[in-house]
Order: sequence, then structure tokens, then C-alpha cells
Amino acid sequence: MRNILIIGAGRSASSLIRYLLDKSSEENLHIIVADMNKSAAEEKINNHKNASAISLNVFDEKDRRAAIKNAAIVISMLPARFHLEVAKDCLEFGKNMVTASYVSKEMKALNNDVKSKGLTFMNEIGLDPGVDHMSAMQVIDRIRDNGGKMLLFESFTGGLVAPESDTNLWNYKFTWNPRNVVVAGQGSASKFIQEGKYKYIPYQKLFRRTEFLNIDGYGRFEGYANRDSLKYRTIYGLNDIPTLYRGTIRKVGFSRAWNVFVQLGMTDDSYQIEDSENMTYRDFTNSFLAYNPTDSVELKLRHYLKIDQDDIIWDKLMELNIFSKTKKVDLENATPAQILQKILMDSWTLEEDDKDMIVMCHKFGYEYKGEKRQIESQMVVLGDDQTYTAMAKTVGLPVAIATLKILNGEITKTGVLIPIDKKVYEPILRELEDYGVVFTEKEVPYLGYNPENVS
Amino acid sequence: MRNILIIGAGRSASSLIRYLLDKSSEENLHIIVADMNKSAAEEKINNHKNASAISLNVFDEKDRRAAIKNAAIVISMLPARFHLEVAKDCLEFGKNMVTASYVSKEMKALNNDVKSKGLTFMNEIGLDPGVDHMSAMQVIDRIRDNGGKMLLFESFTGGLVAPESDTNLWNYKFTWNPRNVVVAGQGSASKFIQEGKYKYIPYQKLFRRTEFLNIDGYGRFEGYANRDSLKYRTIYGLNDIPTLYRGTIRKVGFSRAWNVFVQLGMTDDSYQIEDSENMTYRDFTNSFLAYNPTDSVELKLRHYLKIDQDDIIWDKLMELNIFSKTKKVDLENATPAQILQKILMDSWTLEEDDKDMIVMCHKFGYEYKGEKRQIESQMVVLGDDQTYTAMAKTVGLPVAIATLKILNGEITKTGVLIPIDKKVYEPILRELEDYGVVFTEKEVPYLGYNPENVS
Repeated sequence: MRNILIIGAGRSASSLIRYLLDKSSEENLHIIVADMNKSAAEEKINNHKNASAISLNVFDEKDRRAAIKNAAIVISMLPARFHLEVAKDCLEFGKNMVTASYVSKEMKALNNDVKSKGLTFMNEIGLDPGVDHMSAMQVIDRIRDNGGKMLLFESFTGGLVAPESDTNLWNYKFTWNPRNVVVAGQGSASKFIQEGKYKYIPYQKLFRRTEFLNIDGYGRFEGYANRDSLKYRTIYGLNDIPTLYRGTIRKVGFSRAWNVFVQLGMTDDSYQIEDSENMTYRDFTNSFLAYNPTDSVELKLRHYLKIDQDDIIWDKLMELNIFSKTKKVDLENATPAQILQKILMDSWTLEEDDKDMIVMCHKFGYEYKGEKRQIESQMVVLGDDQTYTAMAKTVGLPVAIATLKILNGEITKTGVLIPIDKKVYEPILRELEDYGVVFTEKEVPYLGYNPENVS
Repeated sequence: MRNILIIGAGRSASSLIRYLLDKSSEENLHIIVADMNKSAAEEKINNHKNASAISLNVFDEKDRRAAIKNAAIVISMLPARFHLEVAKDCLEFGKNMVTASYVSKEMKALNNDVKSKGLTFMNEIGLDPGVDHMSAMQVIDRIRDNGGKMLLFESFTGGLVAPESDTNLWNYKFTWNPRNVVVAGQGSASKFIQEGKYKYIPYQKLFRRTEFLNIDGYGRFEGYANRDSLKYRTIYGLNDIPTLYRGTIRKVGFSRAWNVFVQLGMTDDSYQIEDSENMTYRDFTNSFLAYNPTDSVELKLRHYLKIDQDDIIWDKLMELNIFSKTKKVDLENATPAQILQKILMDSWTLEEDDKDMIVMCHKFGYEYKGEKRQIESQMVVLGDDQTYTAMAKTVGLPVAIATLKILNGEITKTGVLIPIDKKVYEPILRELEDYGVVFTEKEVPYLGYNPENVS
């Protein structure tokens, strides 16, 4: 039996564990799921004969080292900041390693040691990063291998609610970490390049500068810009590309309404609201509006942000009960972002039968023999239920497939890697199709970055 | 002769040095002006017989200690982060010390040692902080001593251009550190309390939530909220006051136009613009606007921020040449804030004959024998020229007066202090009047915080 150690039995590990359990007999695998919370690990393996659950605190050096020493390969599904201790042990004991996280500076620094020991540390092999790298590089490499020159790369990804569960005015529910949604886009301005012009969008305008995109069979969506699109120039070898943009997908109209929270200051996570535990939702909303002895909170907000009474934004706000005189914040020393998250969770938490959906869309513009062409590539994955969600599948399956291929010697490249090499992404993308992670490509007329189609 | 050591001969030291030189013969003073740049120190003393200039790097321990040991009292006009080394030496050698800066945590920690040595470290005794503390506490103490109960305290300060030099559409020129103007209000949200309601304004709305105020003889001004008004509750002993607000004064219309830069993202100091050195002002402006193959930068900006062609905001923007195709940024790896500062300095730098103006306005609401009353207190100081500016006078004179009074034993309180005690502020405010720093008080009907006068 070959031991696969999976550290971290969180939500994103369910499809990963199921894949490996399903293969365990034919592939002669024993799956060890390690988590701080042993019962979470036990639940995931569900008494499978080829699996065991252990309790592991990753900061307990003795336990951690014993578990890693005993493994043939290690998967870390921990938050990214915890990978390094695992990586150092893997290096010492000569174990390959797989994560779905961005390569940190510290992880990158291990590259030479990992290489010289002949090991593979595969990172960024979840959904985003992961499936995005692989599916983009597959098309980019093909275009370049055929002698094409890349002119445009736009890439959008979103975790949304499936159409059948899309029951609120925002067309949105929390299918992943709600906090990330509330603070999305904060920090530095968003940066990208369009037709050779660098563009910068500050947070206060981010949700008013969306791009539209159509997903076949699913209608029109919008995307807002991710923080740093420019770093993908180096990663994908697109250094001179005139248009490079990455964005996050929402249903059309989400961002315009979300901008209300941004403008009010409700998404701020940098300070605490006074006496937050005793506030109603209405008090919270009122704290971002000017004092007035007579005007209602509703009218003050409408006037402040110039929202007409028949604007759908207004209905979206009402749906969230932000003017409620009875609903209490009931959080001590909370930041605006924490309070907003609580308000949203009242309305945006998935119901038991709700399903999620992952949407990814790439646009590749290129020049081939003097002619400009464009390819669009789209993927939609729906969740099965609240365990095998679209998010768990698209994050966990690439990790699982990569792990088995490394273990079986089908992926042999060494070093601290991300899946941008053909020998890595081709077999993984091929197998992902068996699990419903399928990209559909089509040729479209080349437009460049010119959304209004002005000629 | 009694040696007064002044460390730092910057712009704010001119009136301070002149005051002490003028008093030097009758008071038996020798003024030692120390600066990194000795010629700056020499210029300030202008061969006065009771003064000398020395070159001093405050981080050269030997030189610093020698200079402090030799002084009867030390004034530090360095940036606030440099005071601590000076303070530690003053403590060791038993010297009193004066600064115009906010008391840092580290400075505050010296309080017990300073007290036990019987020393006075007087801080926050410039304009703001300084004159604001003294003039506010004088009225607050009087109201309370008479049995009144404070209900409202609003305080506004601004460094502006004098009316005779007010020659541009913004009614503004840089009379102090331009960088502070460009990044003003950034960081956390502005916090204050009005009629018992806590209010929070995020940066993206700060310049749209101004308050109006009238300054007798100078017309209507506006104020935008300072970052943290709430901390003045503790400092002034106003813990249960229902309305407390501090703001920065501009001429009416400044903030609405400044908001254009905020919304575009031009005030951001957190990242560098690509290829900034080769940009024109027009390129810079365009980098914050959507790409379009045909529309002009002008029309894109107007449309984006919904500025009508006959809106005065548009004229203000045109006056700054932000659409210039010929003016070059010419700054390497510059942040948006650095580039905006350069653009503004082209237009907002004081001409040789220009004069500055300091405006301060306090509003005190209180209840006295069941009756609600209000006092307004206003101060306007005009600069004499570009050396003895209103800023240099209002920052430097309180420092100078406090220094001499400490040296002469007229101020005897010990510890790390700020000028909120009657025994400190009374004599200083009285003497400031001789130099034109005069507050005019008037009784007005009590309104509370109710700017629209709704009853």
C-alpha cells in the first residue's frame, strides 16, 4: 500500500478524498486524512477500508514529522501560510508534495533544494489558481506552437450559485468564504493593460467598471477586475501582450448594487464600530449617513447615493433588511466588514438543497499569418450537493489527479512547480473531462479590447 | 547667557527664532540653531549677536549629546519620529524640552521619569496641535467653571492662501507640505459623533460630506472631517458630549472638485505607475479611464464622473492642465499621489509675493441653568511674507513663548505635557494676542448639530 497523506479535511477536500478513495483499491493506495478536528477527517473517509483519519496539529513538530515520514506523497490543503513547515519536512524526508495555493516567496526559495533532491512540489493546482493556468496555457501554447502571436488574453472566473438555486435579487449566495467576498478588491488599485495602455481602477470605482461576458447556455455575466493582472505576463510568457485582464464573475447587476456598500464604507475591515453589539441593522446603516433630526434612514441613503425608488438596487437593499429596527448586530467590537458579512449571511447562506456553480471564461486574441483571430474558451461546472460542490470538485480534483500522476511517475518534472507545462496540464485536463470539468472552445471574430465594437 | 538649543531650522522655525532673538538681549539668551544643513541655520539667525548656528545630525550621538548638555532648554522642530532621541538626552541631562508634535506612545512612556526629575516636556504646542488645544480649553474650562454642561464641540482649522493672493479657481495654494494635502484623509474612515450618533465617513465619500462655516469678514468656508475626532473626548474631558467633530477648512467648492482626484484614484500612494517617467499629464489621466479606441480623454472623464461641461469643476480641472499632451511627468517609478502632487505644484505653488492665511473656528454648545447656549470663536492670521508666514507664526510663536516661560519659571508643571492646563494656556494665549493671534468670540443661538435648521 502507498500512503497518501492529506493534511486538512476542510470543505475543499471532499472531492479530492473521494477521487483517491475511489482509486485506492486498483492503485493500491492508503489514504490518511489528517486534521486538527479528527471527526472532520473521519466524516470524510466514512469508514473506507483503504483510509484512516488522524488528529494532527501541523505545529506539533513531532506528530507532523512522523506523519510525513510515513507518507509516499503529501497533499497540504491547509491555508497557504501553513504550507512551509510541511514543505521543509517533505524536503528532508524526500517526499513529493501537492498544494492548491499560490507559491509563496518562501516556498519558491526551496526550488533548488527540491530539484537537487529530485522532488516535485506541485502548487497552484486547484481552480484559481490551477484550472485557470492549465486551460489557459493549453490554448496559449497551441497558438504559439502553430506560429501565432498572442495579442489579447482575458480570463474570468466566478464561484456562483447554480441557476436552479438562484432565488434572490442579487443572483448570489455564499458558496465559499464569505469574508473574501466582503473584502474583495480592497488594498491596492486593480492593474491591467488594454491595447498597450496600462489601466488602474481604485477600489471606490472597481464595481462600476465591469466588463460583460456571455456564457453559452447561461446568459450574460459581468466581471470586475482582479487586483494584479500584470503578474500573469511573466507567468504565462506574455511579456509584450497589449491586452491582459483577469476578472471575477458575477451575474449582471451584482456589482452596481455592491457598490452601495463600498460607497457607504460598510466593507471596511480596518476599524471597529463603537458599541456594535447593541446596534440594530438600521443603526449600522445610519452610522454611515449624515445626522439629521427628522429624515428617515431610508431617504437619507437614497438621497446620498442618488438611488431612485424604482431602481432595482433599492429592492436589493430592502431584501437584505439593512433598515431593520429589530435585527441586532450582536457582535462585539466588530468592524463594518464583519457586520456586513453577518447581514449578508442572513440572506445569502445556501439552503440545504442549493447547488453552486463555477464559471470560467478565457478570451485569446492572436495574429496568425497576418490575420487577427480570437478564441473563446468556457467552462461551467455545477455542484452535485453541498458536499461535492462545484468548488470542491474544481479545486480538489486537479489536486487529486496531479497527486496520483506524480506518485505513478507520469509527472516527473522536479522543483517547486505550477501547472503551466504541457506535460503536466495535458494529462490532467484530459482526465478532468471525465469528471465534467470541460472547456468548450469556439472561434469568434477578433475584436481586440473594444467592448462597444467601435470601428 | 542662557542657551536655547533649537534643533531643526525648517520653514516652521522662522517666527520662533525671530521671537527668541528679539527677546535675547533683555532676557539674556543665546540662541543656538542646529540643523543638518548649517547654512539654513545661518540664514535664520542672520548674524545676530546673540545667536550661533551649528551643523547637527541628530543621529550622531556624540554631537547631539554635547549640544543638549550645553543648553538650558531644548526645542525640537524635527519631524515627530526624531524627537525621542532628543528627549532621552534631555532626561539624562536634566533639560526641559518643547515640541510642536503629537505626543507619541514612546514620549508618553517617559512621563514618570520626566516628572521625577522635575522636568517639563511640553508638546503639541504649535498650531494644530497647539493653538487649537489652548483656545478650545480656555472656553471649555470657562463654561464648566461657570456650571455649564458641554453639549457640542466642533473645531475647524485650515492653512489657506490669503484673500489677496487667492488667484486660482480652487482658491487654494500649497502653503505647507504638499504631500500631506494630496494624501489627506487616507487610511481609516473618519469618525465623529453628532447628537449621540456615531458617524463614519469612508475616504471615497469624505470630500462629499463637508460642513459649511462662516468666518466673519472672510465669507463662507467648508470643512471635511478629520480622521479621529473621538480621541478628543478623553483629551478635553468631554467623555459624554453628544456632538464632537473636528475638520479641515477649505474654501467652498474645493472638496467637490478634489473628489474628482479621489474617485479617479490619483491620490493613491500605495503603488507605482508603470513607465511613469515617460508619461504626459494626459497619459496619466487616461490611465484611470477605460480604454476606448476613439473617445477623447476629456469626454471619457466627463462621462465617467458625470461632469457637465458648464460645471465649475471642469474649469478647475482644465486650469491644472491634466489633459496636457506636452507636459511630462518626468518622475521615475512614481505613485499616483507623487504625480498628482507634481501636477498640482505647477499651479498651486506660491508666487514670490503671495501670502498665506490660517483660519481656526470653534463652536461650543452648552447648557447653563436649563438653557442651551452656543459660543463661536474664530481666529484668522495672515502671513507677512514667505518667511514669516501665518503658518510659521501660529506654529512657532506658541513654541517660543512656552519655551521662554518654562525657562523663566512661569510654567512649572512637570511631566510630558500638552497645553490644556489653564496655568499653561492662559499666559501663552494672552501673549499670542500681541502677535496678532487673536480669537474673536460671539454668542449665537444654540442649534445643536442641525445644519439645515430643521425644527
